[in-house]
Amino acid sequence: MTEGGPVARAASPRTPRRRRGPRPAGADTRAEILAAARSEFAAKGYDATTLRGIARLAGVDPRLVHHYFEGKDEVFVAAVEFPAVPRTLVARVVDPGLDGIGERMARSFFDVWDNPVGRERLMALIVSVLSGPGAARMVREFLTREVFVRVAAATGAQDAQLRANLAASHMVGLAIARYVLQVEPLASTDTETLVELVAPALQRYLVGPLP
Amino acid sequence: MTEGGPVARAASPRTPRRRRGPRPAGADTRAEILAAARSEFAAKGYDATTLRGIARLAGVDPRLVHHYFEGKDEVFVAAVEFPAVPRTLVARVVDPGLDGIGERMARSFFDVWDNPVGRERLMALIVSVLSGPGAARMVREFLTREVFVRVAAATGAQDAQLRANLAASHMVGLAIARYVLQVEPLASTDTETLVELVAPALQRYLVGPLP
Repeated sequence: MTEGGPVARAASPRTPRRRRGPRPAGADTRAEILAAARSEFAAKGYDATTLRGIARLAGVDPRLVHHYFEGKDEVFVAAVEFPAVPRTLVARVVDPGLDGIGERMARSFFDVWDNPVGRERLMALIVSVLSGPGAARMVREFLTREVFVRVAAATGAQDAQLRANLAASHMVGLAIARYVLQVEPLASTDTETLVELVAPALQRYLVGPLP
Repeated sequence: MTEGGPVARAASPRTPRRRRGPRPAGADTRAEILAAARSEFAAKGYDATTLRGIARLAGVDPRLVHHYFEGKDEVFVAAVEFPAVPRTLVARVVDPGLDGIGERMARSFFDVWDNPVGRERLMALIVSVLSGPGAARMVREFLTREVFVRVAAATGAQDAQLRANLAASHMVGLAIARYVLQVEPLASTDTETLVELVAPALQRYLVGPLP
């Protein structure tokens, strides 16, 4: 993940083009939208939260939310500081086709985790998920809608969503063991070697033959 | 993990047989040993901590520590409320041989996580690991010494410890996705189906051909 990647884009403020609606757009407007978003996502989960509801809670015109963010996924990414826009990441993994999909998935995961900022944000998110069912629900619904459903649609395999669950959870465990627990020799094995080692397992989960 | 399993055995106090050493063994002695152990493990990690050092900090005769616990691993298991004695768990997985080792590993993992008490303790341990390098070091050294080295010794494969890392981290990720995040359909898929689905990946990591 480079500075020009989805993280930076989702996090950088834009200058508002229009100044309509119940209150003028100021430097704090985006921050207030994000505060309202955090509150709504935590209370209602990802699926039941709407951009209109976030705007209402923030006391701004809904068009302002659309002005700052391209969709609910980008609001969520900015609100919880998720280190990537899943839509972008998933497209990079699935768009070139089923051949090599496991390898691309492994590499994309390590890309995000190899970045210290991305790693810190993911670790904070895992802590929040472990802290209670509210955060778990929010993250679960977000990942299901924005990652698993997209990957499943792309592979079209039987049990495609369970397959996406298996592959993604494998990578999450690897990341925790490698970057958080720093268990050896996993932690000091270079990324490309690991991509080679785990790609066949991911490939099988995503599109290979299962019992 | 049943009530008569390793958890209960490691956690239940025994009546001291002897009353020698610098202070008499009382109802609080075991608790004081465990408090000293937590302090030593957190400060020095698992490897550098000794039963003698724990006894010194607790102000008891080292023989008392040996009286309550069979070894450093049992002291650690009781001190951090780890939900299983790895020595026992690893033996169950590796002793019957390499054939089916992946399947037995998957089933053993799910057994611990399917128990609500075991799950709660593992989640607390993951939170502590995420909270700082001290806890991460302690858990890393414990798992390396008591799990990975033992599994590696049993399989005797090339890169055996990296293989054990890969297999175990896969299961940790699965457990987090299934029991903590509760992502669907993974969370409601029955354990035996999951064992069948993941066993081939574990089998390959532990003893199969790798690139």
